[in-house]
Amino acid sequence: MLYDIGRSKRAAQAFSLDDVAIMPTRRTRGIETIDLEWRIDAITFDFPLMAAPMDSVMSPATAIAFGRLGGLGVLNLEGLWTRYVNPQPVLDELAAITDAAEATRKLQQIYTEPIKAELIAERLREIRDTGVPVAGSLSPQNTQEFASVIENSGLDFFVVRGTAVSAQHVSNAAEPLDLARFIYDLDVPVIVGGCATYQTALHLMRTGAAGVLVGFGGAATSTNRHVLGIEVPMATAISDVAEARRDYLDESGGRYVHVIADGSMGYSGDVVKALACGADAAMLGTPLARAIEAPGQGWHWGAEAWHEALPRGRRVEVGQVGSLSEVVLGPSHSPDGTMNIVGALRRALASTGYTEVKAFQRIDLIVR
Amino acid sequence: MLYDIGRSKRAAQAFSLDDVAIMPTRRTRGIETIDLEWRIDAITFDFPLMAAPMDSVMSPATAIAFGRLGGLGVLNLEGLWTRYVNPQPVLDELAAITDAAEATRKLQQIYTEPIKAELIAERLREIRDTGVPVAGSLSPQNTQEFASVIENSGLDFFVVRGTAVSAQHVSNAAEPLDLARFIYDLDVPVIVGGCATYQTALHLMRTGAAGVLVGFGGAATSTNRHVLGIEVPMATAISDVAEARRDYLDESGGRYVHVIADGSMGYSGDVVKALACGADAAMLGTPLARAIEAPGQGWHWGAEAWHEALPRGRRVEVGQVGSLSEVVLGPSHSPDGTMNIVGALRRALASTGYTEVKAFQRIDLIVR
Amino acid sequence: MLYDIGRSKRAAQAFSLDDVAIMPTRRTRGIETIDLEWRIDAITFDFPLMAAPMDSVMSPATAIAFGRLGGLGVLNLEGLWTRYVNPQPVLDELAAITDAAEATRKLQQIYTEPIKAELIAERLREIRDTGVPVAGSLSPQNTQEFASVIENSGLDFFVVRGTAVSAQHVSNAAEPLDLARFIYDLDVPVIVGGCATYQTALHLMRTGAAGVLVGFGGAATSTNRHVLGIEVPMATAISDVAEARRDYLDESGGRYVHVIADGSMGYSGDVVKALACGADAAMLGTPLARAIEAPGQGWHWGAEAWHEALPRGRRVEVGQVGSLSEVVLGPSHSPDGTMNIVGALRRALASTGYTEVKAFQRIDLIVR
Amino acid sequence: MLYDIGRSKRAAQAFSLDDVAIMPTRRTRGIETIDLEWRIDAITFDFPLMAAPMDSVMSPATAIAFGRLGGLGVLNLEGLWTRYVNPQPVLDELAAITDAAEATRKLQQIYTEPIKAELIAERLREIRDTGVPVAGSLSPQNTQEFASVIENSGLDFFVVRGTAVSAQHVSNAAEPLDLARFIYDLDVPVIVGGCATYQTALHLMRTGAAGVLVGFGGAATSTNRHVLGIEVPMATAISDVAEARRDYLDESGGRYVHVIADGSMGYSGDVVKALACGADAAMLGTPLARAIEAPGQGWHWGAEAWHEALPRGRRVEVGQVGSLSEVVLGPSHSPDGTMNIVGALRRALASTGYTEVKAFQRIDLIVR
Repeated sequence: MLYDIGRSKRAAQAFSLDDVAIMPTRRTRGIETIDLEWRIDAITFDFPLMAAPMDSVMSPATAIAFGRLGGLGVLNLEGLWTRYVNPQPVLDELAAITDAAEATRKLQQIYTEPIKAELIAERLREIRDTGVPVAGSLSPQNTQEFASVIENSGLDFFVVRGTAVSAQHVSNAAEPLDLARFIYDLDVPVIVGGCATYQTALHLMRTGAAGVLVGFGGAATSTNRHVLGIEVPMATAISDVAEARRDYLDESGGRYVHVIADGSMGYSGDVVKALACGADAAMLGTPLARAIEAPGQGWHWGAEAWHEALPRGRRVEVGQVGSLSEVVLGPSHSPDGTMNIVGALRRALASTGYTEVKAFQRIDLIVR
Repeated sequence: MLYDIGRSKRAAQAFSLDDVAIMPTRRTRGIETIDLEWRIDAITFDFPLMAAPMDSVMSPATAIAFGRLGGLGVLNLEGLWTRYVNPQPVLDELAAITDAAEATRKLQQIYTEPIKAELIAERLREIRDTGVPVAGSLSPQNTQEFASVIENSGLDFFVVRGTAVSAQHVSNAAEPLDLARFIYDLDVPVIVGGCATYQTALHLMRTGAAGVLVGFGGAATSTNRHVLGIEVPMATAISDVAEARRDYLDESGGRYVHVIADGSMGYSGDVVKALACGADAAMLGTPLARAIEAPGQGWHWGAEAWHEALPRGRRVEVGQVGSLSEVVLGPSHSPDGTMNIVGALRRALASTGYTEVKAFQRIDLIVR
Repeated sequence: MLYDIGRSKRAAQAFSLDDVAIMPTRRTRGIETIDLEWRIDAITFDFPLMAAPMDSVMSPATAIAFGRLGGLGVLNLEGLWTRYVNPQPVLDELAAITDAAEATRKLQQIYTEPIKAELIAERLREIRDTGVPVAGSLSPQNTQEFASVIENSGLDFFVVRGTAVSAQHVSNAAEPLDLARFIYDLDVPVIVGGCATYQTALHLMRTGAAGVLVGFGGAATSTNRHVLGIEVPMATAISDVAEARRDYLDESGGRYVHVIADGSMGYSGDVVKALACGADAAMLGTPLARAIEAPGQGWHWGAEAWHEALPRGRRVEVGQVGSLSEVVLGPSHSPDGTMNIVGALRRALASTGYTEVKAFQRIDLIVR
Repeated sequence: MLYDIGRSKRAAQAFSLDDVAIMPTRRTRGIETIDLEWRIDAITFDFPLMAAPMDSVMSPATAIAFGRLGGLGVLNLEGLWTRYVNPQPVLDELAAITDAAEATRKLQQIYTEPIKAELIAERLREIRDTGVPVAGSLSPQNTQEFASVIENSGLDFFVVRGTAVSAQHVSNAAEPLDLARFIYDLDVPVIVGGCATYQTALHLMRTGAAGVLVGFGGAATSTNRHVLGIEVPMATAISDVAEARRDYLDESGGRYVHVIADGSMGYSGDVVKALACGADAAMLGTPLARAIEAPGQGWHWGAEAWHEALPRGRRVEVGQVGSLSEVVLGPSHSPDGTMNIVGALRRALASTGYTEVKAFQRIDLIVR
């Protein structure tokens, strides 16, 4: 439906995950009949969840732990772990700050330390040595510079992740990243985003990416809405990108590009809704930042928070609810959607009569 | 009206009871002209209210008291009263806990005590001996196991109640409950639910049930929305199920299956709206949990709250507003819809010119 | 626009005054060009405002004061001033109670004192003696009983005011008030309400009333929404009743029945919107209860609050903002719409280019 | 879309800036490619921002400072700086008052001091002497009286600013300002407003104005909604006035009248949205009142706040977030849209693939 915003503008309504919900259907299933396996490229995961490459969520240790639980952890390759030989004192100092303004200034300061190629290689080696799938991320701005170290680090997946990533970046100052060429040259499957619209997603799919991230920065920590006026209601964005997946599948003669919801999913119910909107998998920040092992120690922030001249994100207090294992696989002792996320996915499919995510993507939604 | 949730999803708007209201009509009536009698199967009640089989609401004593006031009390046959010979100390301990997290863990612990068939029989006998109508409930999972004790306990109504009950439950692990067969075999009228859609309701009606419950767990205590992303806006759900009642009436050549709204009615005005949406009766949790006699002692919780791995409900503080008799029949000393629920029903019909619930189901609603 | 509330109900959207607003137009006027005079029956008032017959607002003294300021004060003839020879101690006791529950019980108690015909006569005489227009109100239930004292008290207007008043009241217990017959017999112009729909209003206009009240109890103090599920969004109700005025004007060959918005107008901006929706005048409760002279002493309540078995209103604290004269005519020292209500009406018409209420009723609204 | 507000009224929905948002597009640009220059009449500014002529925002000193940063500061020529030789003690006294009611009375008192023509001339000379562009404002009521001092003060722009300014003001009491004649006679480009609708804007454009202000008083401080029921949702208003600009461009054979959003933009994201709705520039109050140099010292108020009989605005506490230079040009240390407003504009255009404001006016909006 289009609304008239005065005489010279029309606008479509966009829906957040909170605007929609799922209703029970006429069928129910036993929980034991549900299969959550997620296969992307050559690897099959126990459940369709990635851990977001955010310094409050992923360290080499938590990436390994998340992999062992059955998901795909992604290390931020331009974060504290590749800027500092030992980032722990920096993380501790940050966690000790409670004032929001002071935290922003501290973030702006600690991220001025340069990224080191050798630390990228070392952190990835640490993960690879444990045998879990290895994934790391860079922003488009840094991807070119560290391409060779990425090439040689035995990654299973490389993630190009920025607030808004387009296949058509125009720049005067430098040679912009040619995504299609980069992906063609790289011998590792690439996941790229965030994107928010049908057109952007289609263009990104054409670059050869194995998956696209849907979103615009990590939502709980993002203040893009206040600073830039830009906002991505996720239900609409996921549904749009899922349509691009279908059209590209036809256009490409059968290449299935995975749609991965990234951000705005604070509770397990939000993850369920993201799948119901058409996502194949979800990349989680806030829910995992609540784990006791998370490097943020109860705090959570994204890359927007440390921009030197225009921070567009804030550090938020998310608390600590249980071990990473309890958060992901349960058992839960908290009825608020913060624990046993995989169990909740399983239960949601069972309660609505579906056995697998692919079919669940077709479930009817309601507008609340 | 259908909304576009992006390019690949359309969704209908669903309305909660809070989204709608009743406007006065051109006629008013004297309060003495109103008849609230509710006849289901062989029994006629003074008013169309059932008490929810929740441990914070119904004990044998409150079931008896509610029956004496003129309604139908339903005892939870898999709750504390059939797990413990004397549940009072357990209830007292629970009431003494104020911390939410501690309460969840306590609930998870106390409900691990097994259900005892002999206690089911004993509790039902206690109610039956007083001469009030006798009703008890089990979840679909436990119905088979205790079928024979149910059979032999002289019940007036048996209630099969789960979060989502379907006539088409699919399971690998065990022989699922065949509702139609079970109801055919049982010599007691069965009320079954919750259900939330036209199709599910129609299927449940075809099993031979005397009534269907509309809802998805007790709403005030439920966190299904956060944990599972599933939500049942009640105005829409009741209206849908009322349509199923009409269509099934035709299909069956005249069998009238009662539509009983279950949950999401915290105040008397909500009960009025539920009837206006098409319900024949309402099953009350929160309003009765506020009675001084209620076993919850000012606290209220549902079956979702005690799941061992994925609790999807919380214990909520509802307070104590007056005696059960004042809550149901008045007089009220509180102008907030928590007391004299039957008087409020009567007054609502009088103010809008109706003498009975059946006609009142046709009143116009507005969207607020 | 009609919404589907599930398969068996459709509902129109109804708008409150808060849902709508006025936008400036292409014309502005000097404040001195505005004429707010309101002529109803034989009397012309300086501005189109009545004071609500509520005990927290109107005493004989404030009715006189309001009349002297240029409006029409209406005394509640079944309130404390006609139950007690000297109600001041009762009012003082009530004002000293701060607890809400205690206040409700006190209200239920003090209004059990019977109404006295001789006090009705005496209070009205007191007002008449000052030369201001005299008006009093009774509920439909009490109108018959005190008809003769009304007849002989030299009233300029008699107001029949109940929560919901219809021309078609059906009752078993007693001979209901025949409004048309009563109005025909009475030698005083009658204003009657509340009503909320086109049909009810049209029926009330046919009884011969000089004006109809639009509303459903005093909104700020009313809890009908919680207790009964009944709610009257005022913008829609006024617009509906204004249409009835037009249709009745045609049907009757020229009888103009005044549409008087009653309640839900807490601030001067709400009064402006009520006129913009089609009202000829407004009856004010809350705004006048804020006057230092108001008998409520900073508290406000309506007749629903003292029902012995089912109170449907609460006493609310409205505070005291200035003298009655400042509240009505200014000057204002508070930029929140609580003072200089007449000045605000004048300014609103000037800012939007209108000189009188009748034309202002045609101004365009927006939905916010 | 038109809504039925009952049977006799229809109303269009109007949208605030908060109701809408911008989504990323398929293109992104480097921040260095963005050009924010704003050319109006003979002057080119570095960015399309004006400072609002409010006493809490603009003193001669801050007008100069804002001009030096690259924008257009506008001094209120009927404010404290032209009433008092030294307003500093008055500002200090006001800042020391924390009680809202006391602040309103103080404002009513201090603005009774008459405006002095010689102070107008002196304040403008002070600004002119620094070489920055000079602009001052009067309300329509005072414009005539001080026309000659305006004429002779070497202004680059004169602003006629009132709550609602129309080209068709009707008055009995005095000869109203003939805007078209005044503008024709004055040898200085005139910016005039606020206006809120297509028609009013078109009429104002026909008076020969160089720019029109869109708005209805400074929104953060305004209480017109409560006092008068009048409200201007800005997204709709800007879009309407932008359409008037297009139609007048055609009608006039090429005269481009600038559309300047005035008020309701508390954060940089709101400014971005205003441009996206069709504005050429924005006049800022609240954001600049947060600068340490602002005369309000952390408080903010508009002209409506000091009306002697009907104040329609309140003094609000906005706090102090950084220097004027940091607020306008950064760097920002606060991720909430209060700092580096120009940087945020630049970033918003870059993130959505636009290089200049004129093209950005065509970007698609969504309704949130």
